[in-house]
Amino acid sequence: MSPFTGSAARTARWRHLRLDLTDGVATVTLARPEKLNALTFGAYADLRDLLAELSRERTVRALVLAGEGRGFCSGGDVDEIIGATLAMDTAQLLDFNRMTGQVVRAVRECPFPVIAAVHGVAAGAGAVLALAADFRVADPSARFSFLFTRVGLSGGDMGAAYLLPRVVGLGHATRLLMLGEPVRAPEAERIGLISELADEGRADETAQSLAHRLAEGPALAYAQTKALLTAELDMPLSASVELDAATQALLMNGEDYAEFHAAFTEKRRPKWQGR
Amino acid sequence: MSPFTGSAARTARWRHLRLDLTDGVATVTLARPEKLNALTFGAYADLRDLLAELSRERTVRALVLAGEGRGFCSGGDVDEIIGATLAMDTAQLLDFNRMTGQVVRAVRECPFPVIAAVHGVAAGAGAVLALAADFRVADPSARFSFLFTRVGLSGGDMGAAYLLPRVVGLGHATRLLMLGEPVRAPEAERIGLISELADEGRADETAQSLAHRLAEGPALAYAQTKALLTAELDMPLSASVELDAATQALLMNGEDYAEFHAAFTEKRRPKWQGR
Amino acid sequence: MSPFTGSAARTARWRHLRLDLTDGVATVTLARPEKLNALTFGAYADLRDLLAELSRERTVRALVLAGEGRGFCSGGDVDEIIGATLAMDTAQLLDFNRMTGQVVRAVRECPFPVIAAVHGVAAGAGAVLALAADFRVADPSARFSFLFTRVGLSGGDMGAAYLLPRVVGLGHATRLLMLGEPVRAPEAERIGLISELADEGRADETAQSLAHRLAEGPALAYAQTKALLTAELDMPLSASVELDAATQALLMNGEDYAEFHAAFTEKRRPKWQGR
Repeated sequence: MSPFTGSAARTARWRHLRLDLTDGVATVTLARPEKLNALTFGAYADLRDLLAELSRERTVRALVLAGEGRGFCSGGDVDEIIGATLAMDTAQLLDFNRMTGQVVRAVRECPFPVIAAVHGVAAGAGAVLALAADFRVADPSARFSFLFTRVGLSGGDMGAAYLLPRVVGLGHATRLLMLGEPVRAPEAERIGLISELADEGRADETAQSLAHRLAEGPALAYAQTKALLTAELDMPLSASVELDAATQALLMNGEDYAEFHAAFTEKRRPKWQGR
Repeated sequence: MSPFTGSAARTARWRHLRLDLTDGVATVTLARPEKLNALTFGAYADLRDLLAELSRERTVRALVLAGEGRGFCSGGDVDEIIGATLAMDTAQLLDFNRMTGQVVRAVRECPFPVIAAVHGVAAGAGAVLALAADFRVADPSARFSFLFTRVGLSGGDMGAAYLLPRVVGLGHATRLLMLGEPVRAPEAERIGLISELADEGRADETAQSLAHRLAEGPALAYAQTKALLTAELDMPLSASVELDAATQALLMNGEDYAEFHAAFTEKRRPKWQGR
Repeated sequence: MSPFTGSAARTARWRHLRLDLTDGVATVTLARPEKLNALTFGAYADLRDLLAELSRERTVRALVLAGEGRGFCSGGDVDEIIGATLAMDTAQLLDFNRMTGQVVRAVRECPFPVIAAVHGVAAGAGAVLALAADFRVADPSARFSFLFTRVGLSGGDMGAAYLLPRVVGLGHATRLLMLGEPVRAPEAERIGLISELADEGRADETAQSLAHRLAEGPALAYAQTKALLTAELDMPLSASVELDAATQALLMNGEDYAEFHAAFTEKRRPKWQGR
């Protein structure tokens, strides 16, 4: 959303994921289908950097995160990540784990809605990426597994112990993070982990449709809605209503609000400008 | 609940809403049925001032917020509010948005339970008023729409981005605030947005019945329960158990707790005094 | 989990509850079946002290909290507690209420998962004990009643006004704490208050089975998962991902993580050491 462009150039080519930009919708595809889109160090780093870059673009108004092949994402690669971390020193381990946390923060803090399109497995870091998204569009084949304890690690990885209780409540979150068992689509929908259930095989399509609808909407209103949802999880009520008041006063000075009123008066659909 | 009366007189007549006081139950009715009870500047100001006045009364022990006619409340009036705000300067816009936030804080902070009786539409500010209440008694015709983004504003209006994730979880809250789509009674009940589902056409009656039941109960116990629920959303566990301990020690010195024990021993119903 | 043993001796015999230790599973049974396991001052004090002692043991890896006879726990004893508190001065009342809060903090902060095995009534303090547990395994006879307002006290007792909204959402929590009505198993499961529904009469067995499964797992990973779930309810996202990073870096230096990788490579089940 920002017009403030510095010296840093756009990245010409993302080597560890696939990026498509169409009509304001960025589609990021995890594309190692032969490994169920297991994440590598490069993929985490690309997600971190890509989200930072896209956050500076005015043109991106919604982002879809999808996985190619049989599933969404099987999480950190056992060979390339678990194996490699066993040889790391403490500083390197911190660096790695901070990077994965930065990806989650970037998903929560970027100024456009993020839609995870989930089919098949969303496991480990893959489950947390979906969890961090604003919308989880999933088809009946989706299964989420927060399987960190199964590899001897804490279920609180990449903010999962922060986010999951706020999405499904502390009881379900404890069970999911402690036991690492798969949550299939019907249960995921029942406990609030799925935003929209798509028909079998149509998670990507349904996510694209939602993304395009969002991309055609009032982008600044969406950006602020997201920012307030993210910020007010960490704020008291008194400060939240003050933040809301300042935000609405700002947007009431904006063009989209005036455009709504003009369109309403003229009985036509508003033409949103995102400002 | 307070015996501390200052110089300010009671308001003799509320011009922008209807107030009825019966047996400790205050019923506030939004009464512009020809406009689906759309809120005006006067109605917001009256709600703010009325809640402040009633909070100083010992006689009010429960409050019902209801809407006359075909629905509960269609939100801020498009002509009288959206139109007027387009002509306001920034300070005026802040004033207006702070006032609406004050209404929500007053609902959350008044020392008696507030019950929203919802039938038909509860949209925009109307949806947030219902959300801020302690109980939402709704009939099958109820539909909640947080439609702020549809007019180009932030979904985080009047504390909605604070309250809604704490009522229905972050996933549902994001979907509802971002898209502004109506949530009908069955879904609202499933995700926890409705406290009690009433029979068709009987939301008001059911809300009154709950209010009268609460008004006959231990008012100080209810007041403290509400205050702790509100405060402890913003407090850590350690401080919360300390606040609970101080609160219970206080109430264990009170008359209603002794009355419970006497009634229990004498095998009769307690006569609550609210102190 | 701690090797740091001081001068304090283990308590030889717990007089107000029953303790069994088998294969890393501590089973604490409230055993006053003739009184529906109503809690006495001694029982609260024993729970507080026992949890502190067990938290220093390396051998305890899961704890089951169960009730003997017809129900789980009917809460504070009306005669022995309510009657006695009526004669207490303010300092004594504070002491008592702080003690009950300490039990809840101990349940949330001990370094092993706590499983409440609930059948029949879980009322008042009994409901909050179950609520504080990490898992609630309940059979269809279970009914939870947060009946504090019914005795003239605040529904926010022992952290209930903190915990319940974080488990079932603010709407349900308000209704449950304000009205004190029983929540039966089907509703409790629907709103997320039950972690696992057991067959009729098999809550204890099912809880034991879960406890033994947890006791055989990676104890340090579970302990950290629990610690992060507890801590991150009170932390912002930014600090939470930093805590997660430090925790995972720590555990990636640990033996269980290396053991997982070795077992995975050798296609065998890991032998967890809990370090």
